[in-house]
Amino acid sequence: MVAKKVKVNVENYYFSSRSKLKDFSTSDTQGLEETKDVRKKIKENMREVAELQEKLFAESQQSLLVVLQAMDAAGKDSSIRKLTSKLNSASCVVHSFKKPTKKELSHDFLWRVHQRAPAKGYINFFNRSHYEEVLVVKVHKLIGPAEVKRRYKQINDFESLLAANGTRVVKVMLNVSKRYQLGRFKKRLENPGKWWKFNPGDLDERKLWTSYMGAFEKAMQNCSSKKAPWYVLPAENRWFRDLVLSELMLKNLKAMKPKYPEASFNVKDYPPEDLV
Amino acid sequence: MVAKKVKVNVENYYFSSRSKLKDFSTSDTQGLEETKDVRKKIKENMREVAELQEKLFAESQQSLLVVLQAMDAAGKDSSIRKLTSKLNSASCVVHSFKKPTKKELSHDFLWRVHQRAPAKGYINFFNRSHYEEVLVVKVHKLIGPAEVKRRYKQINDFESLLAANGTRVVKVMLNVSKRYQLGRFKKRLENPGKWWKFNPGDLDERKLWTSYMGAFEKAMQNCSSKKAPWYVLPAENRWFRDLVLSELMLKNLKAMKPKYPEASFNVKDYPPEDLV
Repeated sequence: MVAKKVKVNVENYYFSSRSKLKDFSTSDTQGLEETKDVRKKIKENMREVAELQEKLFAESQQSLLVVLQAMDAAGKDSSIRKLTSKLNSASCVVHSFKKPTKKELSHDFLWRVHQRAPAKGYINFFNRSHYEEVLVVKVHKLIGPAEVKRRYKQINDFESLLAANGTRVVKVMLNVSKRYQLGRFKKRLENPGKWWKFNPGDLDERKLWTSYMGAFEKAMQNCSSKKAPWYVLPAENRWFRDLVLSELMLKNLKAMKPKYPEASFNVKDYPPEDLV
Repeated sequence: MVAKKVKVNVENYYFSSRSKLKDFSTSDTQGLEETKDVRKKIKENMREVAELQEKLFAESQQSLLVVLQAMDAAGKDSSIRKLTSKLNSASCVVHSFKKPTKKELSHDFLWRVHQRAPAKGYINFFNRSHYEEVLVVKVHKLIGPAEVKRRYKQINDFESLLAANGTRVVKVMLNVSKRYQLGRFKKRLENPGKWWKFNPGDLDERKLWTSYMGAFEKAMQNCSSKKAPWYVLPAENRWFRDLVLSELMLKNLKAMKPKYPEASFNVKDYPPEDLV
């Protein structure tokens, strides 16, 4: 149980309505290094998360929604891969939001998102989310400032609805620098097995880095609360990112206190030794 | 690489149109024992399956559907848990079919199933499936023999449609004895943490064991082909069940030969060293 020694404070990364993105590190590790103990701690956390997941599913009264947003190549896929590695796929759903389809565009922007909200007992992950509708569309000026503002409120109302129904919403921005992204793009181009992940259009978005950071900041300032918090995690050290993510999930699941439900039958009526 | 020595023949368990269920063992292990090598082999298989899963997703041309059917407490949940343990949740979906809802019943029996068919690039698992509609409803005589026959054909047509669109369908019955089920029920009743999995109604179904076996046999005789095969796996030794299941998945994914796609851009136009 040496792993007990590894301590990390996730609340350092809470983004409030008054936070500024420039105050958040992309490479902080809280003085930790990638040791055996850290790797052990991540595993222990994930194992504990999996135990709580089973209770959550057995109980079927609450659910957890983890929203991941980040610039391209910042590690959304690998974060989800790691976070779900010990989970039971039977009550864990990952949904990656792509460019909306024609049908989806014929509805309000939360319509397709609402359908992917976790059912009771489930843990869902959003790889991108409704926040794209106040990020990419804002950066490209597809909607004006009044509509952006309206959407912040609509998002808050939507997330309140989920919360009122037993869904805990945790939102994470994986924070990396523009230079870090460059390194990741280069790696993708150097490895034919990664070409399918590279899209030349990503380079155009990269040029809008500053606008994106502005849009992230505004969105998080307007849509972060203790009930549906945003966290901005230093994501350049993947082991540290995984450590903080596992802590964050564990903390939230513990706070939900899922319990195995009472038996739906009268236990005394079914003594195991009498079964035939 | 000692694990290379562990060999198992999955085709022993192929159920053809002329097979009889009584000829299939519930506890066969092909002479193997649960050794370190066996456990290593299962892990190796699952790791290889995960690599093929990534290619399948990158390629996005084909998909795999694994259907699991069995009597209550035979180990459907734990099989899926094991089979998905090394998979990437981002392109793997588990769907557990329950009693149809009112809305589902207002459609044909394949309507809800079709919606859960794997998208290109995905591996989906069905925990129970459209086969319930020729099992439980047949045993309880909710439909007559003519309708059962019609459904066999409708199922075959449906599975052909999936196959024609690049979906490989593999169906597995986890074969256990009535006595084995009794032991599992007792275990559930002895452990309060498992009460939520126990349903007194399961004891009534248990009384219909012979009818269920007859319905399974008929369904598999009528709906098994090289293109959409049924396998009847000895499932009382969980380690052996997992070994065979991992072999079966690996074999099928290998046969699909998923490949990383060509780059969607002209690679020469993007020399990594020129990126800024």
